[in-house]
Amino acid sequence: MKKKLQRVSHKKIVVIGGGTGVFVVLNGLKNYSSELSAIITMADDGGSTGLLREDFGILPPGDVRRALVALSHSDNKILAKLFNYRFREGRGLNGHSFGNLFLAALERITGDFSRAIDEAGKILNIRGGVIPVTLNRTHLVAELENGKIIKGETNIDIPKHNPELKIRRIWLEPAAKINPEAKKAIKNADLLVIGPGDLYTSIIPNLAVKGMKKTIKNSRAKKVYIVNIMTKYGETNGFSASDFVLEIEKYLGKGILDYILVNIEKPKAKRLTKYKEEKAEFVEFDAKNFKNFPHSVIKAKILRPAGLLRHDFYKLAKTLWNLI
Amino acid sequence: MKKKLQRVSHKKIVVIGGGTGVFVVLNGLKNYSSELSAIITMADDGGSTGLLREDFGILPPGDVRRALVALSHSDNKILAKLFNYRFREGRGLNGHSFGNLFLAALERITGDFSRAIDEAGKILNIRGGVIPVTLNRTHLVAELENGKIIKGETNIDIPKHNPELKIRRIWLEPAAKINPEAKKAIKNADLLVIGPGDLYTSIIPNLAVKGMKKTIKNSRAKKVYIVNIMTKYGETNGFSASDFVLEIEKYLGKGILDYILVNIEKPKAKRLTKYKEEKAEFVEFDAKNFKNFPHSVIKAKILRPAGLLRHDFYKLAKTLWNLI
Repeated sequence: MKKKLQRVSHKKIVVIGGGTGVFVVLNGLKNYSSELSAIITMADDGGSTGLLREDFGILPPGDVRRALVALSHSDNKILAKLFNYRFREGRGLNGHSFGNLFLAALERITGDFSRAIDEAGKILNIRGGVIPVTLNRTHLVAELENGKIIKGETNIDIPKHNPELKIRRIWLEPAAKINPEAKKAIKNADLLVIGPGDLYTSIIPNLAVKGMKKTIKNSRAKKVYIVNIMTKYGETNGFSASDFVLEIEKYLGKGILDYILVNIEKPKAKRLTKYKEEKAEFVEFDAKNFKNFPHSVIKAKILRPAGLLRHDFYKLAKTLWNLI
Repeated sequence: MKKKLQRVSHKKIVVIGGGTGVFVVLNGLKNYSSELSAIITMADDGGSTGLLREDFGILPPGDVRRALVALSHSDNKILAKLFNYRFREGRGLNGHSFGNLFLAALERITGDFSRAIDEAGKILNIRGGVIPVTLNRTHLVAELENGKIIKGETNIDIPKHNPELKIRRIWLEPAAKINPEAKKAIKNADLLVIGPGDLYTSIIPNLAVKGMKKTIKNSRAKKVYIVNIMTKYGETNGFSASDFVLEIEKYLGKGILDYILVNIEKPKAKRLTKYKEEKAEFVEFDAKNFKNFPHSVIKAKILRPAGLLRHDFYKLAKTLWNLI
């Protein structure tokens, strides 16, 4: 793919999300645009990230780290490996991601999480930017269909509640305001990519930030939402493609999205076995429900040919690129 | 000092030691020679280094980290700060040096401590090399004048024994063999600098490695030993300059050293106050005992003008440089 750099453009692309979804989109698009930004949820509180939030009071580093690695153009491959390295031994170190510790230490040295990201970006030689959606310390809260309140992203993500219950709505506590850098990036974008990623724990926590809805609405960018390939038990049980869109629009407003991108390449039964254990299912494109939607729907065969059921990042990037 | 780089030479200098002593020497000499290597003791087992040795089974990273930072020519000043950063919070992280974690993670990724040092050196853009004196896992043992045996470098360094008792001898358990890279560096050196540093816990642990004595003896390099500025309670109580030399020669053999470098700039009483509490004293140059020594003795005023009582690294480097 290195050769693709020859045709790198200066079109401004902003990807909004968290987790591995952002990583996949950035990894593909970084070969097309040198003006690529990732706006990252700040609601994570599980694992290594959660420990560092509690002990250091910093913003969550985990998804930032993944985005930095995705945007790295460093010739030093060891650096990216180091950033993704997870300690598997050591009192108090076991389970920590080295990249998270890197960001925590940089935050302490620079005194500022955004500067820590910038400095890590320099060391990793990233092209583009990684922007926290908010600079406020906040936590995710969900209300289930039975009215029960669940606090904390990790308690929703790894459901500590009855996973058969639907999530009625999510919000941030305390309320968080959009990071001015995120606002600026969205405002100036040519293409805005939302998702893929865990709907209530990676994607909507961005849209739930005060000022995001309005900023996205007012952006001249073409706006595309990428529907997940698989459902997630405890979040999106039984969801078809249209259900994802309807949930997104609850937070974003109707008529904002220009495009819905849906994968219609069904994986072979064998690749679904592991997912069956986790009660995750292939997200069907329910054409009939899309009939009344105003958006342009892009149906594409963009499944990774092997391994985990994720988008193929070359095909995904090419499809997105064709929108601008 | 950056301008000094114009007259950087290719004379090969090898510094042998550990702790902050090596840091001071390297920091000065790096402006003179681009062929500067540090051979570092592998007997440390205290603090962050000790925890990582126990939990990861790696060689001790602490002194390696200091030497890497000293040799760094990176324009990115944050990287050096990061390497020296010590966590002051966080369950299990508190007290750990980030640079030590960096080396531990690199050791796991590369599978080899020497490669970890090389990769860290690339990231820090070092000029020169940092070489573990041995690649064997070993620990320091001391016998006191009353016959008592003390195991572990940190137990000797922060004396857990009666500090009034002299150390009769030290050795390594299990016996450790010289690292072939260290052997090569010493063999090809033009100048060999031993010390300054804690006599029994930073300097002699290098000389106690099998093959070091012979390798140093056979080297065509000019060999200089830098006497410490201050004594250390529990190690070198009441030592004059000649006592340091006599102890070094117990492990190195007589007639090997070409030069003894002694600071004769006495600090003002005020700067000694803090040291008095630690029962550390200024090391006097006891001229009468040097009369029968075969070495060239260089008496120099090379005390840092302020702060901790250490060698001024510009003056020290200049003095050393004049020897070749």
